[in-house]
Parts: sequence; C-alpha cells; structure tokens
Amino acid sequence: MKILVINGPNLNLLGRREPQTYGKNTLRDIEDNLREQAEHLGVEIDFFQSNHEGALIDCLHTAIGKVDAVIINPGAYSHYSIALRDAIAAVDYPVVEIHLSNIYSREPFRHHTVTSAVVNGQISGFGPFSYTLGLMAAVDLARQRQSDES
Amino acid sequence: MKILVINGPNLNLLGRREPQTYGKNTLRDIEDNLREQAEHLGVEIDFFQSNHEGALIDCLHTAIGKVDAVIINPGAYSHYSIALRDAIAAVDYPVVEIHLSNIYSREPFRHHTVTSAVVNGQISGFGPFSYTLGLMAAVDLARQRQSDES
Amino acid sequence: MKILVINGPNLNLLGRREPQTYGKNTLRDIEDNLREQAEHLGVEIDFFQSNHEGALIDCLHTAIGKVDAVIINPGAYSHYSIALRDAIAAVDYPVVEIHLSNIYSREPFRHHTVTSAVVNGQISGFGPFSYTLGLMAAVDLARQRQSDES
Amino acid sequence: MKILVINGPNLNLLGRREPQTYGKNTLRDIEDNLREQAEHLGVEIDFFQSNHEGALIDCLHTAIGKVDAVIINPGAYSHYSIALRDAIAAVDYPVVEIHLSNIYSREPFRHHTVTSAVVNGQISGFGPFSYTLGLMAAVDLARQRQSDES
Amino acid sequence: MKILVINGPNLNLLGRREPQTYGKNTLRDIEDNLREQAEHLGVEIDFFQSNHEGALIDCLHTAIGKVDAVIINPGAYSHYSIALRDAIAAVDYPVVEIHLSNIYSREPFRHHTVTSAVVNGQISGFGPFSYTLGLMAAVDLARQRQSDES
Amino acid sequence: MKILVINGPNLNLLGRREPQTYGKNTLRDIEDNLREQAEHLGVEIDFFQSNHEGALIDCLHTAIGKVDAVIINPGAYSHYSIALRDAIAAVDYPVVEIHLSNIYSREPFRHHTVTSAVVNGQISGFGPFSYTLGLMAAVDLARQRQSDES
Amino acid sequence: MKILVINGPNLNLLGRREPQTYGKNTLRDIEDNLREQAEHLGVEIDFFQSNHEGALIDCLHTAIGKVDAVIINPGAYSHYSIALRDAIAAVDYPVVEIHLSNIYSREPFRHHTVTSAVVNGQISGFGPFSYTLGLMAAVDLARQRQSDES
Amino acid sequence: MKILVINGPNLNLLGRREPQTYGKNTLRDIEDNLREQAEHLGVEIDFFQSNHEGALIDCLHTAIGKVDAVIINPGAYSHYSIALRDAIAAVDYPVVEIHLSNIYSREPFRHHTVTSAVVNGQISGFGPFSYTLGLMAAVDLARQRQSDES
Amino acid sequence: MKILVINGPNLNLLGRREPQTYGKNTLRDIEDNLREQAEHLGVEIDFFQSNHEGALIDCLHTAIGKVDAVIINPGAYSHYSIALRDAIAAVDYPVVEIHLSNIYSREPFRHHTVTSAVVNGQISGFGPFSYTLGLMAAVDLARQRQSDES
Amino acid sequence: MKILVINGPNLNLLGRREPQTYGKNTLRDIEDNLREQAEHLGVEIDFFQSNHEGALIDCLHTAIGKVDAVIINPGAYSHYSIALRDAIAAVDYPVVEIHLSNIYSREPFRHHTVTSAVVNGQISGFGPFSYTLGLMAAVDLARQRQSDES
Amino acid sequence: MKILVINGPNLNLLGRREPQTYGKNTLRDIEDNLREQAEHLGVEIDFFQSNHEGALIDCLHTAIGKVDAVIINPGAYSHYSIALRDAIAAVDYPVVEIHLSNIYSREPFRHHTVTSAVVNGQISGFGPFSYTLGLMAAVDLARQRQSDES
Amino acid sequence: MKILVINGPNLNLLGRREPQTYGKNTLRDIEDNLREQAEHLGVEIDFFQSNHEGALIDCLHTAIGKVDAVIINPGAYSHYSIALRDAIAAVDYPVVEIHLSNIYSREPFRHHTVTSAVVNGQISGFGPFSYTLGLMAAVDLARQRQSDES
Repeated sequence: MKILVINGPNLNLLGRREPQTYGKNTLRDIEDNLREQAEHLGVEIDFFQSNHEGALIDCLHTAIGKVDAVIINPGAYSHYSIALRDAIAAVDYPVVEIHLSNIYSREPFRHHTVTSAVVNGQISGFGPFSYTLGLMAAVDLARQRQSDES
Repeated sequence: MKILVINGPNLNLLGRREPQTYGKNTLRDIEDNLREQAEHLGVEIDFFQSNHEGALIDCLHTAIGKVDAVIINPGAYSHYSIALRDAIAAVDYPVVEIHLSNIYSREPFRHHTVTSAVVNGQISGFGPFSYTLGLMAAVDLARQRQSDES
Repeated sequence: MKILVINGPNLNLLGRREPQTYGKNTLRDIEDNLREQAEHLGVEIDFFQSNHEGALIDCLHTAIGKVDAVIINPGAYSHYSIALRDAIAAVDYPVVEIHLSNIYSREPFRHHTVTSAVVNGQISGFGPFSYTLGLMAAVDLARQRQSDES
Repeated sequence: MKILVINGPNLNLLGRREPQTYGKNTLRDIEDNLREQAEHLGVEIDFFQSNHEGALIDCLHTAIGKVDAVIINPGAYSHYSIALRDAIAAVDYPVVEIHLSNIYSREPFRHHTVTSAVVNGQISGFGPFSYTLGLMAAVDLARQRQSDES
Repeated sequence: MKILVINGPNLNLLGRREPQTYGKNTLRDIEDNLREQAEHLGVEIDFFQSNHEGALIDCLHTAIGKVDAVIINPGAYSHYSIALRDAIAAVDYPVVEIHLSNIYSREPFRHHTVTSAVVNGQISGFGPFSYTLGLMAAVDLARQRQSDES
Repeated sequence: MKILVINGPNLNLLGRREPQTYGKNTLRDIEDNLREQAEHLGVEIDFFQSNHEGALIDCLHTAIGKVDAVIINPGAYSHYSIALRDAIAAVDYPVVEIHLSNIYSREPFRHHTVTSAVVNGQISGFGPFSYTLGLMAAVDLARQRQSDES
Repeated sequence: MKILVINGPNLNLLGRREPQTYGKNTLRDIEDNLREQAEHLGVEIDFFQSNHEGALIDCLHTAIGKVDAVIINPGAYSHYSIALRDAIAAVDYPVVEIHLSNIYSREPFRHHTVTSAVVNGQISGFGPFSYTLGLMAAVDLARQRQSDES
Repeated sequence: MKILVINGPNLNLLGRREPQTYGKNTLRDIEDNLREQAEHLGVEIDFFQSNHEGALIDCLHTAIGKVDAVIINPGAYSHYSIALRDAIAAVDYPVVEIHLSNIYSREPFRHHTVTSAVVNGQISGFGPFSYTLGLMAAVDLARQRQSDES
Repeated sequence: MKILVINGPNLNLLGRREPQTYGKNTLRDIEDNLREQAEHLGVEIDFFQSNHEGALIDCLHTAIGKVDAVIINPGAYSHYSIALRDAIAAVDYPVVEIHLSNIYSREPFRHHTVTSAVVNGQISGFGPFSYTLGLMAAVDLARQRQSDES
Repeated sequence: MKILVINGPNLNLLGRREPQTYGKNTLRDIEDNLREQAEHLGVEIDFFQSNHEGALIDCLHTAIGKVDAVIINPGAYSHYSIALRDAIAAVDYPVVEIHLSNIYSREPFRHHTVTSAVVNGQISGFGPFSYTLGLMAAVDLARQRQSDES
Repeated sequence: MKILVINGPNLNLLGRREPQTYGKNTLRDIEDNLREQAEHLGVEIDFFQSNHEGALIDCLHTAIGKVDAVIINPGAYSHYSIALRDAIAAVDYPVVEIHLSNIYSREPFRHHTVTSAVVNGQISGFGPFSYTLGLMAAVDLARQRQSDES
Repeated sequence: MKILVINGPNLNLLGRREPQTYGKNTLRDIEDNLREQAEHLGVEIDFFQSNHEGALIDCLHTAIGKVDAVIINPGAYSHYSIALRDAIAAVDYPVVEIHLSNIYSREPFRHHTVTSAVVNGQISGFGPFSYTLGLMAAVDLARQRQSDES
C-alpha cells in the first residue's frame, strides 16, 4: 500500500512562518515523523510540496494508478482553487484533506473551502498530529477500497 | 485519564436513519467499539446522548473537573446552537468535534457551523472511524495538557 | 389507523396569545374538534404539545412504528430548528406541517422555514381549519402508504 | 355558492410533463374529480387555465362579484409575478393558493413566492389532493365571509 | 404634438382597488381630466391600458413614429419586467414614468425598479396629480426634442 | 402661501460641476426662474442652500409654522443621511423631493435613498424643469392641506 | 427534420433598436439567411416571434411532436421568466439558447439567466452568426436524438 | 409588587467562565445583591436559571398573572431563539432584556438579536450593574402599568 | 464629579415630533428632571444639543479632561456616523449611549448602530427614563474609574 | 489563417474523468477531429493544454501577432482567474470561450465566470461539438477582422 | 505652485488618540514637517482641519482656482460621505487621498471607501510618511497638469 | 540596502496592453527609471516578473534574508490569491503594494483585495510614479527597521 502526502503553498516555510499559528515543527520534521509511522503501519509513503497550483494538479493526475490514497494539505488553495477541486474530484483514489490550524477559528475568508466538498473527509486543528490522524484515515480508506474491490 | 463522548440530536437513531448518509452501525455499535479502543489505550471512557440542547449544555458543565477531554458530535446543533458554542468555550478541557458524514458535501446550510470556531479541532466524513480518530486526538490533547500543566 | 398531532412552542397559550393573529380558540378547543372529526373518519388520534425542542424530537422518534402519520405545527421552531428537521427526515411515516396563520404575510424572518423541505406537504393560513385540512391530508397520505405497501 | 379554479403556466401539460415531479393525472382528470366533489358539496365550480400572466390577471378581475372564492395554482408566476400578486390583493373574494409539489423541497428559486403573502392560505405538496383540500378551504372561507356579511 | 398615456396591470381597477393606497378616482376620471388638460395645452392625447406585459411592449413599439412622448405607469411591471425596460430603451421618443403612490414608502420589493434607469425622468407619490405633472414633463421633453431636431 | 426651496451639498456649484450630468444652469438661474413662476402662481418663495447636513436640518426645523410646503433637493445626503430623513419625518408641512438627474440611471449607490420614504412625492431626471414640476406639486399639496384643514 | 426558431421580446425591432449593441440586420434578414442555410442542410425551418411570454410558452407546447429541435432567443425573458424555463424543461425535443450580444459583458442583471440551466446548450455574443451556429447545434442534437431512438 | 429575574444558558457558570468578558461575580453574588436592592425598593424578587430553551419558555408562561415584570438575560438564546421571542411577545407583563457584556463590541453574530424587538427596553454592557439598572427599569415599567390600569 | 449629556439631531424637537414614538416630554423637561436627579446624587451636570455631526464631535473632544463621564443620545447618527464613533473611541472618559425608543423594534435600518461597539454600555427603549438609567450608569462608571485610578 | 486552441486545467484527463459529465472522448480525439475540420476549412490549427494558470497566460501573450483567433476552454479558471481574464482582455485577436458541459445546469459556483465578459462570444453545453462550433465562430471572427482591417 | 492639505474628523486629536494605531506625532508636528518639505520643493503649502463634513466640502469648493492640488485625509468620512465624494468629483484640481493607517488591515467597515473612486490616487499605511508621499504625488500631478495645459 | 521589485501577471505587456488604462511606458522603461532613482538614493535594486502565482510566492520566499524591502504590484492576483497573501504575511521584510491605476475607480471586482491587509502600506493610481513613491516608502520602511533593530 502506497500513500502520497501533498503539501500546498507556503508549507515549505513551516517552523519559520507565524509559529504561534503553525507551530515550531518544520515540514521536514513532520515528514520524518510520518515516514516512521508509515513504517510501523507497513505502508510506503511519499511526499510532494509545491507553491504552484498547476504543479499540485499535475501531481494529483500523475498519482492515478500509482497510489492507494492521498493526504493533502492544500493550504490557501483550499479557499479558492476550483481547478484543484476538480482535480481531486477527477481522481479515483481516496483523498483526506488536513489542516494544521483550526481554519474555522481564524479569519472569515478561511471558513469557506472549495476542496472539502470533494474529499472523503477533513481533519483540522490538531497541528502536526493532523498529519498522523490523516495517515490513519487514509490507510483505513485505502483498506476499505481494497476490500470493496476484492 | 477520562474521556467523555457526547452525541447530539437524532444520533440515537443511528443505523435506522438514512443509512446511505450515516451508515448501518447503531450508536451502540460505535460505543462498544470505542470502549474497546479506549481499553487498549488505557483510558476510561463515558457516553452521553440527548436530543435536548439544554441537556447537552448541562452535561458539558457537569464534566468540568471530572474529564480530561470531550469528543462531541453536536449533530444539527453544530449549525445554529450558539448556546452550545458558549458552553464549549466556557469549559477548560479540550474538545474535539466530529461528524460521521462530510458536512461540506451536503446541503449548503450544513457547510456553516457555529461550534467549530471554539473546539480544538474538527474531524468529519470518515463514518464511525471519525470517532476512532476523535478518540486518538482527544487522548493526544489531554496528554499535551497534562504535560503543559506539570 | 392512528394519527398523532404535535404542537410546538407557545401553542399551549392559544386563545390567550395575540388573538388578532392566532384567533380565539384554545388548543383544547382545537383538539376536541379534531377528535370529533377523527371519530367521523374512523381514525384514532393522539395529541402532544411541548415548548422543548428536544421533547418534540423525542416524541417524533417514539412514534416510529406506532403511528400512521403525523400532523405537526412546529411553531417558531419551523424557522431554525435543523435538529427538528433532521428528526422529521429520519422518521418513516408521512408528516404534514401546518400553521394557523399565513406565515408568508408576517415578519420576514417567518418567511423562511427549515422544516418544510422534509415534510410531505404544508398547509398554512386557515386558522383552526388548518388542522382539519391537515387531518384529511394525513389520512390520505397514510392510506396511500398502506396501499403502496400492500 | 360559486368557486373558480385558476391554473397558471404549463399546467395544461400536466400528466405529460416531468411525471416524477407532477404525477400522472392530466389537468382534465383533476378538473373532473373536483367537479364531482363540488357537486357533493353543493357548490358550482368553474375552471380557467392560461399560460399568459395578463390573462390570469384579467380572469381574476372579471370574477369580482361573480364568484365566492378562488383556488389558484399560479405555477411559476408564484415566484416573480408581482402583477399577479397585486391582482390577488385587489379582489374582494377569498383566494387559496395551491401547489401540486412541495415547492420548499425543490430548487432554491422556488422557495420564495410573491403571491403567498396576499392569499388567505396556502396548501402545497399533496399532488392532486392539494386541489381537494383547496376546495374545502375555499368553501370554508366563502361560508365564513357569507356569515360575516349577514 | 401627440402624447400617449400607457397604464399597466391592475390600473383598470383604480378607484375600486385598495382606495387607501391608490385613491378614489377611477382610471376613467384620470383620463378625462388629462384630456381636458391636454386640450388646454393644445396637444393631442391617447390612452392605452393592459394587464398583458406583451401588449404593453407591442404598444410601445407601434407608437414609434406616431407619438412625440409617452407617459407610462408600468404598475407592478416596473419591478421586474426587463422586457418592458428593453422596449422603453429601444424607442426613440421621450418616456416619463409615473406612479400614483410613493413606491419608496411601501413594501421593500417596490423600492427597486428596472424601468426607471431607461426613462427620461420619474414622478411618484402625488396620486392622480402625478399624471398632470407627467403630462407637463412629457410636453416639455417633446418640445426640447423638436427644437433639438430643428 | 409660502414655499421654501432647500438645496443640499454641492448644488452651489451648479453650472460649473459636471455639466454633462447636471446641465449649464447655475443655481441662481434656477432660483430666478422659480421666483418668476411663483409670482405667476401667486405664491411667496424662499431659498436656502448649504453643504452642512446640520444646517439643512436646522432649516427644516425653523420652517415649521412658517411655510406651507418645502421643495428639497437633498443632493448626496439623500443616500445616507438618516438624520435628514428624521427631520423631514418630524415636520408637519408637505415635502417634495426633487433631483436634477435621473438617479436611477447613475451609479448603483445612487439608486437607494433614505429620504424618499418620508416625503410626499419624488420627481427626478428632468433637469431644472424638475424644480418647476416640484413647485407645482408643492402648491397642489399645500392647497389640499389647506382645504383638509378648513 | 424540422427546426423551429423562436424569438422573444423586442427582437422584432432588430436593426432599428440600439444598432451598436444588436447590429444592423433586421429579424427578416436573419430569417432569410437561416432559411437558405437550412435548405443547404436539407432541413425544414419555421419561425415565430412574440413579445408575449404566454405566446412563447404556448408555441413551445404546440411544437411537441411536430419539431425535431428548437432554437430560442428568449431576449429579456431569459433573465426572469421561470414560466418559460418550466416550458423548456417540459418539452421533449432539444433546445438551443442563443443571444446576439455577449450578455456577460453587459449590465450585471443580464449576467444571470433562468433559462440556461434547462436548455441543451447556449451560444452568445456572435451577432447574427449566433443563429447560424445555433442551427448547426440544433441539427446535431436532433440527429443524435434520432440515432439514440433508432 | 413582584419581579422575576430569568437567566439563560451558561449564566450558571458566571464567575468561572471567561472572567475577562463576564467578570468575577458568580450568579449567586448577583442574585444576593439584587435581593438586597429589591428589599430597599420594597419589591418581592424571584430567580430562575436554565440552560433549556423550553424551560425558559415554560417559566415565562407560568409567570403570567403572577409577576408584575420580568428581567431576562437570555444569553445566547437572544441571537436565534424565535420561540423565546414569541413567548416574550405572548406575555402581558413588561420585560426588560439585559446583558452583562456590550454585545455590540463582540463577535458579529452577537450584534443581532431576535428578542430585543419584543421587549420593552434593553440594557447591555454594564456588567453586574446591568441587573441593578434592569431592576429599576422593571419597577418603573410595572408602576406605569399599575397606574395605567387604575 | 461632572457628567455631560449630549443630544444629537432632531432631539430639540422632542415633545413636538411623532409623540407616539418619542413621548410628550420636551428636551427641556428631560433636562430639568435630570438636573434634579443629579443634585440628589451630588454630581454636576451639563447639557449640549446639536443637529451638526461636526459640532457633536467637537463637543466630545472639548470635554476631554473636563468631565468624568458622558451620556449620549446620538439620534440618527448612531446608524452611520463613523466619524462620531471614532470620536467616542478617542476620548478617555466612559460613554453611555441611550435611546428613548427601542430601536430594535423599529425600521430595519435602525437595528444597526456604528456607535454601540465603542461605548461602555447601551440603554434603549425606556423613554425619558432611559436618561435616568443612563445617569446612574454614568455615575457608576465614573466612580469605578476614579477607584481604578486611585 | 491560424487558429490556436487552448485547454485549461484537468482537460488532459478528458475521457477518463467523470464521463457522465464530460463524455468519453479524450482530448486527443477532439484535437484530431478539429484538425480534420480545420483542414476542410483551409485553416492552420495548433493546440496547447496546461494545468498552470501562468502557462495559459504566457501562451496567450506569445500568440500575439502569430494567430488570427483563439478558442479557449479555461476549465475551472473561468470561475476565478482574473489574471487569465486580464490576459484575454490584453490580446488583440478574437477569443471564443467554449465549455463541454452546460455550466449553468451544474453547481452554483460554476454559474459565474470572470472570463466571459472579455471574450467575443461563448459556447457551452454541446460536448465535443462545442469545439466544432467554436472553430466556425473563430474563423468567422478572424475573417471579419481581416476584412475590417483591409 | 500651491498645495492645500485638508484633514478630516478627529485628526486634530492626533498624537493623543489611540497612539498604537495612529502614532505619537501631533497634527502640528506633521504640518511643520510638511511645511519644511514644501519649502525644499519650492511650493507653497496651506492647511485646513475640520470635524464638520460641510466645512470640508466648503473648503474644497473655495479652493477652486486657488490651489494646484489637494492632499486630503478624509478620516472616517472616506467610508460614507457621498457628499464629500461629489465635492471631490466636482473640483478641477488633482486630489490625493492619504491615510495614516493601513485601512485594509483594520475593521471590515473601513475596507470600503466612497471617496477613493474619484481621487487621482490613494496612499495608505505609512504613518506620517503617507503625507510626505502625498506631497510628492500632489506636486507631480500638478506639474503634469501645468504641462498638459501649456 | 537592497530593494526587490516584483511584478505580477500581464505586467510584462505594459505599454502594449490597454494604454488608456495602464499608460504607454513599458515595464522596461519603468525598471530603467527606478534603477536610476535607486542609484541616486544609494540603494541596490532588483527586478522580477512572472505570470505564475507559484513563481511569485517562490520569489518572496527566496528573498528572505537577502533583501531589505519588497515593492510588489501583484496585478490581478491582488484580488483572489490568498496563497500570495499568506506568502507576504510569512516574510519578515517590509512589503509595499503598488498599483498603476486607481483600482477603486474600475470594475467592482477590483475594489476588493486580499493582499492589502498584510502589506505595510498601499499606493495606487499614480501610473509609473506609483513605483517611484513605492521605492521611497520601501527605503523609509527598511531604514526604520534597521534603526529598530540596532
């Protein structure tokens, strides 16, 4: 089983950007952590980060037929990228949307997302632990799909 | 460590009500499942369900000083009960909001919640597995709080 | 055949409250009237009134498997109780929503209802006669359902 | 006592148009049915249908002094014809608005009506039985008016 | 010089309809009055009334090349008939919009008009005297146009 | 009979300001014209202009008991001065609101006025001729009032 | 194969009305042009124009069973005639909506249409060539339908 | 003279909940204080608190004929409980609405209340002193009512 | 201790303007009453009234360092004068906003105020008694401030 | 004559993505088809597809002076990319916007486009045939432009 | 060359009012600074401040023909004074709008301005340095205008 | 001291695109001009332009620790790129937002920006001179920061 973790714009700055909102862990710390957890669960894990909307869409397309589930933190693109939404709706594997902060307790324009309607489920507000929960959810969804198909 | 799971209106009908949206598990099935998981994690777990807004608020109040974290599925009250929101904001223990269905892919009036802004984090769309993730998140938050306090 | 008539908040004050809007009949008068009509139609009839949103939901749940149709005047809860709406959507018997006054010729906040979308039909503006029409509609729906099932 | 039944745009297609929404009865079936019921009630009944907003207004005007009550299914004109609304507000006999389908469980633009504020009462969602309930309501209103005047 | 006075829906009921809003004068009274005033001003005057949106548009079209100005009371069509608006925008003679009542002190949906943006000017709230002022304005506009053209 | 003409902000610039919108006549030209017309009608006429919202309100107050009607061009204050609206609502003489340009064919923020709901009638779009029509309307209203009182 | 071309309000003025927006061709020119093109394509073509909403609806109804596709330019009725929308939704032949001008680069109230949701496709902004494209689309849709049915 | 003080949801937590917003006094402190003040004024005083919307409505109903005025702090129910609003509108004694905090300087959803339109007057922002002012206002209203009735 | 009472636009007409809304007391009556009450409380009191937004702002500025608290009835300026709001936010003494009528049961545009967010507290709906309650609140706030500073 | 066909995000998945909405043809099929049609019309044709907003803008810029017209299917960027809109507005060749599906009968957020206001015309809802119609429209516009310039 | 600097409501309090938002400089400090800078640039400079909307309008009018450009900080009037907007639109000299604070990072009601649409340019957020930049912009605009005219 | 100037989408077309809105200067002209001015001020200056949202974000990230301030003209991305907004909020150097045209006097969708809330200040409407003012502002902010740090 293979899980892909996609991180959107500005998440490369993690640990350096507004630490009171996003915490002190760097993206590298989070990825190292997840790799370890994946190993425990016996699943393969890959990572991709880009600030480019088009690159995130390309990545979702390319993953078709290659991964069993995707965990995506679309960052700010959650709030307006209908193109990203359409890409998520177009792929056939389960997608879990995660956010580090609780987007519903921040500025009003962050309360609305265009991507949430097309993912399988959403997890937000638990800091780096959102990724851990996302990994468990992705593995669970991938397993359900495998058992549905068999 | 003690975790309380609170379920709001109509969740007592689970398994019987619109199974295509909410699945075939009864609330009892979910609670049994969670009790088992809690045992594995070495935490005590309690359950409360009511269709009464006031009873849910009373329950949140009474839990002050008695529980380490709460998992709440506020059901429809998520969308308009500012009184419930104020109760959550008033308590001192961490609160995790969970939903069985992905509320963002349902009717427009379910896309807005008044409770999400005051909980620690939100998990939605994973069916009964939302509760499992919620339990893990609640335990994690309770542990953080214990280590912050010590 | 058994019909249940549920009345929501403040309807216990009928006859005493704003008679220019709601008329001079008490809820008791209306219930006596309906009982007589039900007898003529050869159907059993029961009544419930509460000012508590949760009690109305409990009542709708309890009626599952016990009644053939429900007539509900949700009063002010029509306009905001998504929990009540979910309860109506969850039950399997037909539900007729009635209002004494024409809610569309009153204050703007009464023009919008959350319950109407999930009932079978709505009757409003005929005073106590709304209940009479509601009884006929409920009986008709219950009969259709019986003949559909047989 | 004389009752006039007015049907608005596209209702002439009844039975042929979107039967899953509007049922299999033709307008003719419904009118035959109503004529029979009117006979039982001892009231005279007349019918008018037009797709022309102006013709519906003319018909409402002409009926002044000739009918004791009107049952109107304004079809789509319910949602925007302020001219029809003004015609209803201008006549002196009672008017009952009816709809075959439950307009509140359809597209959002059908949730708002401009005519409902000026009719005596509204009945919607009971299929052809909406007309039967409308006839009873119209007769009741006409009788009240006769007894008020005498 | 020839002036055409066009009256829209329900104005044929004037004097009989809601006299507290629209006054006791019939349309006939107003037209007789205007005919007399037109004679004094040495201008020819014609009248048209219809409840049919299409008939009002046809009338505006037919008047091209035959009248020097039009006074129109579009009644309720002011508020939503974009077709009527387009007809007014399409004709080459000046158009004065008048209303008997002050539409800005009535229901909110009467505060917005679609026709006002394309007429030369608007007069509202002076009862039958609105027509007298409209006649003077129409004559003034027609004269300006004649002197502009010569 | 005494008529007062009140002009609001920026109208002192008339003839100099955006002549394509407001015409080439100065406020002085318009006042001279109106004085002549008033003389013909046998009524006394007075003028006041100010750019100060408070001065316009003071002027309306002071006129109580001294004038028979007021013609007011509130300029931009039409669109937001609720204080001016309250002053107009508080006085006991008739008030005619006039505008040089057709405010409904200009920027959207000029389509809404707060003063129109409390004046007797409104005239807009006829350039300086709006004042002439306003004078006639004011005289007519003042006469009605005198005959009502006697 | 038979195609019907329906033109809505004010299109009879084409060539005379606002030529900078709608071009110099009369409706007759466009119809002659289309007749020639239809001949080349070997299809029969008919034309109907009316300023009456009801007449357009009647025409759509009458065409059931007589035409293979309809091209409609609903003019201003696109923006508010839900009755016309319902008529289009009720017929069983394909319907192509066309507009001469690009309605999306005009006044905001023209950006929203109620008819577009129920037609097969929409073409706007190509002047008289919109009709030519509409004819091709209508023929294509009619052929698809014939091959689907056979 | 008898005054009833009703406190809504979460006010039982006063002194423990968000003290920077609601102050350090417990509800008990406030009630003791008011009892003392009432004694000085020679009026009887009673207290009721509930987190249940229905219980607050029941309490308002039961007080009819037993109290001379009510002071209510509806807490969060101010913002959405139309049922509570209807209960206040239905009772015949004067009602004073009070709030500890200035609701207009808090979150936007607290700027709108549904109860304020039907109370006699509103006092907000003075902390526990809001209750003292409310007591004075309630006594004044009750006295006016007694002198009106005598 | 010195208290300043500021009254905004149209309040000079009190007693003469719409007495059914604002009561029969003149502003002079209210001021005399307050002077007497102030004397009882042993505080000095001053009054200012103006219809000019700028004069009210000047007055608030001038009072800095000279008064211990201000009671302001901003009249219609409450609803739109952000300049007045900024002046209140800029001063260092406590400000109590009062209204004679219950602004929340009047026209919708009076339900929103821009000043309420920056005052200490608001009192509305008690007629002239609103000023009495305002005086008590102002004295209480001034005393708190004195004890905070000492 | 040279025509460029630009396809936006996710259109590379055509045939594989939601075939019930977008049909079974791949983008390659559509391009092959168009190439053939272009050959018949004697025009040169080129193709570009990208999921990157910036790449689409670069492509539009580069085409200046090299192509005679552009056919663009902006996909989801239609709904929010003001940058793409500005690029279309900036180029000097005609641009035809096409959509495979009827965007007006899909989710509400697809009813609004930012690009449509600046293209020459729009075609939507005809599946792959939308491209054929787009090609004809583009050739027609390019020819008009050539004849205008000569 | 002569430049006039106009300051609106509450700016006289600068240095004393909310220093964390507006800085510690008094208006006098800023004016002294600007006078020095103007001297360096060889331009004459004048200052005007008022809390009165009307006085600011009068000042803009009086400056016609006397100044070469105006720098205005309209303070809170930016957000609602359409009268001030009309005055700016009416004058013939260039106008630069400046704000001390970044109005777009403050309360939502400060994000919208009515004056910005009619000034030549806007500068906000640089504290007292906004005035320095405004002076440079004003001089540049005045020079352009002189060279355009010569 | 090093200043970076970032230009967003379509600004590479400057001088060629809609010159009546954006002027005749090319981006190269503006950059040459700024380089000269920077030299006079003794600061180093660099330039970057891209039509790619992601490239602009990458550029802002890369500049951390390398530049003292940034001048950004985000073009159309100002209006919707929350990703760009987050990038600006994440960097630690001052950012000045500039626009060539006065965005507040253009289409309504350009009146709202998402970036302005997080920059230090904004300058718009002065054509190429906006960049000159932006350079001065950036240098001033960088100097303040240096002196704050030292």
